[in-house]
Amino acid sequence: MPAYKAPLRDMRFLLNEVFDYPAHYASIPNGKDADPETVSAILDECAKYCEEVLSPINLSGDVEGCKFENGKVTTPAGFKDAYDQFVAGGWQGLSHPTEYGGQGMPMSMGLFKTEMVGTANWSFAMYPGLSLGAMNTIMQHASEALKNTYMPPLTEGRWSGTMCLTEPHCGTDLGQVKTKAEDNGDGTYSVTGTKIFISAGEHDLAENIVHIVLARLPGAPAGTRGISLFIIPKHLPAADGSVGPFNNVVCSSIEHKMGIKASATCVINFEGAKAWLIAEPNKGLEAMFTFMNTARIGTAIQGICHAELSYQGALRYAKDRRSMRAVSGKKEPDKVADALIHHADVRRMLLTQRAIAEGGRAMIYHCAQFADHMVNGILENDPAKYKKWDDKLGFYTPILKGFLTELGLEAANQGVQVFGGHGYIKEHGMEQIARDARIATIYEGTTGIQALDLLGRKVLIMTRGGAVREFTTLVGKFAVDNMRNPKMRSFATTLAKYAAEWNLLTMRIMLMARKDRDVVSAACNHFLMYSGYVMMAYFWALQASVASEKLAKGGSESEEFYKAKIATARFYFDHLLPRAKGHATSMVKPSKSIMKMPIESFVFE
Amino acid sequence: MPAYKAPLRDMRFLLNEVFDYPAHYASIPNGKDADPETVSAILDECAKYCEEVLSPINLSGDVEGCKFENGKVTTPAGFKDAYDQFVAGGWQGLSHPTEYGGQGMPMSMGLFKTEMVGTANWSFAMYPGLSLGAMNTIMQHASEALKNTYMPPLTEGRWSGTMCLTEPHCGTDLGQVKTKAEDNGDGTYSVTGTKIFISAGEHDLAENIVHIVLARLPGAPAGTRGISLFIIPKHLPAADGSVGPFNNVVCSSIEHKMGIKASATCVINFEGAKAWLIAEPNKGLEAMFTFMNTARIGTAIQGICHAELSYQGALRYAKDRRSMRAVSGKKEPDKVADALIHHADVRRMLLTQRAIAEGGRAMIYHCAQFADHMVNGILENDPAKYKKWDDKLGFYTPILKGFLTELGLEAANQGVQVFGGHGYIKEHGMEQIARDARIATIYEGTTGIQALDLLGRKVLIMTRGGAVREFTTLVGKFAVDNMRNPKMRSFATTLAKYAAEWNLLTMRIMLMARKDRDVVSAACNHFLMYSGYVMMAYFWALQASVASEKLAKGGSESEEFYKAKIATARFYFDHLLPRAKGHATSMVKPSKSIMKMPIESFVFE
Repeated sequence: MPAYKAPLRDMRFLLNEVFDYPAHYASIPNGKDADPETVSAILDECAKYCEEVLSPINLSGDVEGCKFENGKVTTPAGFKDAYDQFVAGGWQGLSHPTEYGGQGMPMSMGLFKTEMVGTANWSFAMYPGLSLGAMNTIMQHASEALKNTYMPPLTEGRWSGTMCLTEPHCGTDLGQVKTKAEDNGDGTYSVTGTKIFISAGEHDLAENIVHIVLARLPGAPAGTRGISLFIIPKHLPAADGSVGPFNNVVCSSIEHKMGIKASATCVINFEGAKAWLIAEPNKGLEAMFTFMNTARIGTAIQGICHAELSYQGALRYAKDRRSMRAVSGKKEPDKVADALIHHADVRRMLLTQRAIAEGGRAMIYHCAQFADHMVNGILENDPAKYKKWDDKLGFYTPILKGFLTELGLEAANQGVQVFGGHGYIKEHGMEQIARDARIATIYEGTTGIQALDLLGRKVLIMTRGGAVREFTTLVGKFAVDNMRNPKMRSFATTLAKYAAEWNLLTMRIMLMARKDRDVVSAACNHFLMYSGYVMMAYFWALQASVASEKLAKGGSESEEFYKAKIATARFYFDHLLPRAKGHATSMVKPSKSIMKMPIESFVFE
Repeated sequence: MPAYKAPLRDMRFLLNEVFDYPAHYASIPNGKDADPETVSAILDECAKYCEEVLSPINLSGDVEGCKFENGKVTTPAGFKDAYDQFVAGGWQGLSHPTEYGGQGMPMSMGLFKTEMVGTANWSFAMYPGLSLGAMNTIMQHASEALKNTYMPPLTEGRWSGTMCLTEPHCGTDLGQVKTKAEDNGDGTYSVTGTKIFISAGEHDLAENIVHIVLARLPGAPAGTRGISLFIIPKHLPAADGSVGPFNNVVCSSIEHKMGIKASATCVINFEGAKAWLIAEPNKGLEAMFTFMNTARIGTAIQGICHAELSYQGALRYAKDRRSMRAVSGKKEPDKVADALIHHADVRRMLLTQRAIAEGGRAMIYHCAQFADHMVNGILENDPAKYKKWDDKLGFYTPILKGFLTELGLEAANQGVQVFGGHGYIKEHGMEQIARDARIATIYEGTTGIQALDLLGRKVLIMTRGGAVREFTTLVGKFAVDNMRNPKMRSFATTLAKYAAEWNLLTMRIMLMARKDRDVVSAACNHFLMYSGYVMMAYFWALQASVASEKLAKGGSESEEFYKAKIATARFYFDHLLPRAKGHATSMVKPSKSIMKMPIESFVFE
């Protein structure tokens, strides 16, 4: 497994030079303490923890995996100790309110932390990651009493949390949930049912596990409108805040998965477990989905995590391993052969990984500011503010989650490819990254669901193309501003063309969809990928323009860094962005090329 | 793991309706016995064996894996029995000469068999597959005495074979081989060295293992011109044809791999093992590479194997699993939700898999006829004939191997995606297909090597664009022939445009490469993928045209089959072929967008 080195220079470039986080933090209520020195110190400290504690147990965690015996899950060697250090460092509550024991930093700091923790060891990151989901749901929807009971130990990390949605017969289609809740008449409920694919559902890291569970009340309407949300602790909380009696929450098995093997994926049986309702009855799905946008950005980060780690591994190998001579002549004549990095096709793979990792990171950092505002809407009890920023984030979310996880998987596979046969064997860890990356396009809403959410909901229904117009206005303005700069002209021209085309395609699909509703589902994957490529192009051009300004000023210590930014942007525009052309062509094809074939023709003969 | 059902209808469509194999077999010397009835009976028998014997041990083989203890490898439960049946059925020698005990069928029959065996169980297919490599090398290059010793037990399958090329420090770059051969002065040699990644290097299936080994003679020139080829049996053959004394060929470990876990990948130490030279001294690499084109087509087949198997699994699941309602309205109103197959985006994934499997199969069947002629050139001792057909095959080989294995991996990943979270866990076998598929773009020459071979060697150096002109002439003729047919016009027009563009792009790259040799390596991956998409388009249009003719005639029992062919062709043209546009744009970008960045800028900060 490649040793992880946190890309702090790149993170600081985005924070301070591209997106001006110091000004952003100064402008938000909970950003006062996030002054540049504090932010910098937190990033350094987090990097150190990730590099020294989490990275070394990434490969061993995969090899050992989680063990299940008599309802208990044992995490791999080193995980408990690493988690204790995580708790001691206060990392779980970094972005949560001080009243519950958190550090009160803005939400974005939590996302930057997630990237480092997740790159060093994604399996580990799943445990605190699921806790965040539970904490956010409780924070927004639970009563004060429940918050006071559960938020402090969850914020500390002494307890951990889960999200229990999926059942054996349904994952995406939660309207089919069958788990039952009965009213005990004392303000509590009894919940019975089986949930599957519960990440961090059972483990040995925390004292108690707090499940957020979707279930049906008696007589609830069928489908999505009859689902309520409950909080169900594995052990009932004692009055003094310690862990009380067992609450009939049983882990009956763990899954054997392709990857993220150190993350326990559990079948959880609720056997008449005592539960508390959060949010209104039958409005559980809405409540569950309020934090969906941030949760999905958390998963989008997984794309860049795997791209970054695989790039780091592939780059070291490409400098070290010697094979053949470069097509343009010997580069290292005194050596038995040239290092892989001298071969253009290997560089193409390395630059693809780099462009995905750094381009994706810029997309995340852009959206993290919206997440800060959105979360502050919740903390300030200002629903209008919450909605405004949640809506804004809502356009980016499916693009980031859908596109970045697909590209993260590609980048991870390129890393295997750079290693050749050695990439396929376990010892270098490159194949593990590809296996770990494979889940990201599936959970937290598959790529297909993201694509439908983007095109169907966010673009067509909610904004009638307005979301695309708003983003492309930003792109258009950038293009105009940069058109006269000879260093930026080619980027600006290309961007302006794509911005116009994106709107045109949106309009064409809107018109097509009026006559043929299948068009939306038939076109959505191409629309998602197209949107991703064009959006990432903007963020690459933006980075190139900042780098170009800095170089023009001269005298920087980071000249090589800035030049590399511009070169990677050039690579992106020449070698990845053109893929958008294929998607542009395909998305406006009639839906019948997908829907015409009768189901009877889908057979093996 | 999806139960495998051999796609016999599709295979017969290609054999009898698209490529006229009956006429082809009637025209070649060793095709006399391959009359339609015999061919049909062989395919049925092979399908039965694959479905009933090999498919059921595919998942269990992955879970159990190979075991290594004290130099011995134990294959998973059922493998030895399946191999015994393989031997008893005469499958190893299906396409090898009757004088050695084979069935004397044309080479192409062996390729069709490989597809079925490999789809049912790719790990199993590796054992007889490597034997074929050894047999072919011996048949073409060894002395009569060696042939008489080794060919009969290898053809029977009582012994198996390997190809020992890779060493710890070199795989692609075989000029770095260090294994040493010393002349014993009695017509034999002593070989010492370590080979890695030796598939089927040690196992419990056969009585003896015959290694074909690259090594250096004393004083041999450095690099690729100083490598010789040896035959080294694990046990020396006794005079009566049985297994004699151990020959100091030691398996010191097996690799822990991402996939194909039931295939033993061995480290083999030759510790002064007795060896016989085959082919001329220092011409080992040339000899090793003579059968390279057929070996690479064998690996290209792996792409369609995984696409087919993953499609079969995903299709069954998509018909069975219910989730949400189709965007265009309820399709199964009496059910709790619509089956996945009613969702356009799921169909897009299924059709992608199908288009890859069936399109790739057509490409293989087209080339298999060239392989027949080429092999007959060897059997007839007619070097000119051999060279003519080997050259012809040489243009297709890198496209088939490079492109089909990349798309096979994509198709396998789509199958995981159709299953959602269930695709990521082991029990359904979908993730195994994705892991098994991952090696195919790496071994037998990585995609990068195929791309360089195609653009650099086959297109630019050997034929100065002639290979592309020859193929596109075929495409152009097809387009002209079909332009007046209203059912085919749209396919024909699109094909004609791509054929013209392909030549134009080739010429542009040729001109660019004159001034900048890095262009070849910078452009080759895009050129390979572009070539693959356009070539597959031709074979889809060809299938559509045959299907369209049959439908026009009317009265066929296979109307649904033909309609599905046309619909899948339409899908391919609308949703996969447009990807070629991105590659067309990128391949003619200046090489500096890849090569400009100094190595010093490839750092983590």
